[in-house]
Amino acid sequence: MMIVNDPARAAPFHLSDCDVSIVGLGLMGGSLALALRGACRSLTGVDTDAGASEAALARGLIDEAAPFEVAQDCDLLVLAAPVRAILAQLEQLGSMYTPPRETVVLDLGSTKKLILEAMAELPPRFEPIGGHPMCGKEVGGLANADANLFRDKAFVLVPTGYSSVRALALAHEVINTIGAQAMTLSADQHDKLAALVSHLPYAVAVALMRTVMAQDDEQVWTLASSGFRDTSRLAASDLAMMTDILLTNRNQILDALALYRGELDSLETAIRQGDADGVRAALAPAQAQRSELFRE
Amino acid sequence: MMIVNDPARAAPFHLSDCDVSIVGLGLMGGSLALALRGACRSLTGVDTDAGASEAALARGLIDEAAPFEVAQDCDLLVLAAPVRAILAQLEQLGSMYTPPRETVVLDLGSTKKLILEAMAELPPRFEPIGGHPMCGKEVGGLANADANLFRDKAFVLVPTGYSSVRALALAHEVINTIGAQAMTLSADQHDKLAALVSHLPYAVAVALMRTVMAQDDEQVWTLASSGFRDTSRLAASDLAMMTDILLTNRNQILDALALYRGELDSLETAIRQGDADGVRAALAPAQAQRSELFRE
Repeated sequence: MMIVNDPARAAPFHLSDCDVSIVGLGLMGGSLALALRGACRSLTGVDTDAGASEAALARGLIDEAAPFEVAQDCDLLVLAAPVRAILAQLEQLGSMYTPPRETVVLDLGSTKKLILEAMAELPPRFEPIGGHPMCGKEVGGLANADANLFRDKAFVLVPTGYSSVRALALAHEVINTIGAQAMTLSADQHDKLAALVSHLPYAVAVALMRTVMAQDDEQVWTLASSGFRDTSRLAASDLAMMTDILLTNRNQILDALALYRGELDSLETAIRQGDADGVRAALAPAQAQRSELFRE
Repeated sequence: MMIVNDPARAAPFHLSDCDVSIVGLGLMGGSLALALRGACRSLTGVDTDAGASEAALARGLIDEAAPFEVAQDCDLLVLAAPVRAILAQLEQLGSMYTPPRETVVLDLGSTKKLILEAMAELPPRFEPIGGHPMCGKEVGGLANADANLFRDKAFVLVPTGYSSVRALALAHEVINTIGAQAMTLSADQHDKLAALVSHLPYAVAVALMRTVMAQDDEQVWTLASSGFRDTSRLAASDLAMMTDILLTNRNQILDALALYRGELDSLETAIRQGDADGVRAALAPAQAQRSELFRE
């Protein structure tokens, strides 16, 4: 099916009237395609990996696969790639003299400051809005895409000074359609909180893996059980995604690491002093809060 | 059923001929009782919490509940409590003038050095051997006991200079019966490796929880997703168990923390330099090893 644009058509306000393009058919983009299936006028997929586009077509996730230059002629353009790839795509859009139609641009990038800055530079017929669904999975890629990935998860929206009512309305309709919960933050707020609950845990997991690997002792892995498995899990995250996050949210991550180091110091002091009450007091609030947070 | 000891009976070499007592009916002791059900002559349970003993009796995990002083008259005494409780129990056994019969003492404590030192002080009719099944669960307590908890998991054995052939044989029979895999280590080896793959991940999880809690921002929890959930999971571990571990394996844990700090420094330097190749190089080996280790 080839989607043909009618230049006389008014910019649609509802998802069901939108030609939607999703750029990046990994876990996020693929899951979004699955969750939006049937809810929009058409769904076009873009991926630099031809295998991913073919698989998405074969599984019926998208109506059509197209290169970025073609797919950007749509009503809602969703950028679902690693952050630096999104920045390159925004730069490409920004260099266009006249976009073919009025297009809402929603990104799903993991860090927001640089993306929102780039969005502010887009030509007027683009209506940008930043987004970040707060969810993930042990394993990435299209093969693990899941229509329920976003269900009941927070979906952060970061409006720009330029976000149109239409952009906000369409973003909220997407969020409702996929069953997520909208939460509006500034780019700085998002990047600070994400540094704490997402990027810091990743750094912690990588440092843990590196510590054990540095032992160069095969026996140590035999003793690693479910506790080590869970604490180190994020170290297996996609390298391109994580490299881009560390590069584009550097200052917030360094701040989070400094706070973490302070807490590690306190804990170490309690262990060094070796006083049972002191050790227990250092552990108890974290134990209570963590037990309360996720009831497993 | 009251198990009556026959003083003329020879010390049994097989589990099926053993009166077994398990001291501590939490996740470990309860799971062991489940896994040993039907494999021994009798199973007596001890817990300072009368509720746990009653629940174990009601669920048919044990034949009989008894106080420690009574239960220690058995062929195989399994100590399945937090480390400092085990140390107190060993001290109590050590103060006995003549134990009622020849008794193999196997502990399941999380750290081994102090326990093995205490075992060396036991009177001659006790035949001690150290043990540590390398497994756990999100949630502790008898209610979560599981006969398959030990299946295919490493079970570290730490023989003492005094471990009898009978103690080794019975410990191996227990390990085979519960489907675990025996692994012999010295107390120092065990405590060093456990500090790296078990106690350090716990400290890392607690410091992470403390960092986010120090923000005093309820919004931050809304953004916490599966990545944070897994990395922080160990912070919810049982306080008594973890306090005892941190107190009784202090030096090995402080060494592991020092190594971890060094790795965190390297990672932080790479992030600060902000060079894509450098960041990727700091992450890639951990990504490859973690992906290889646990195929999820």
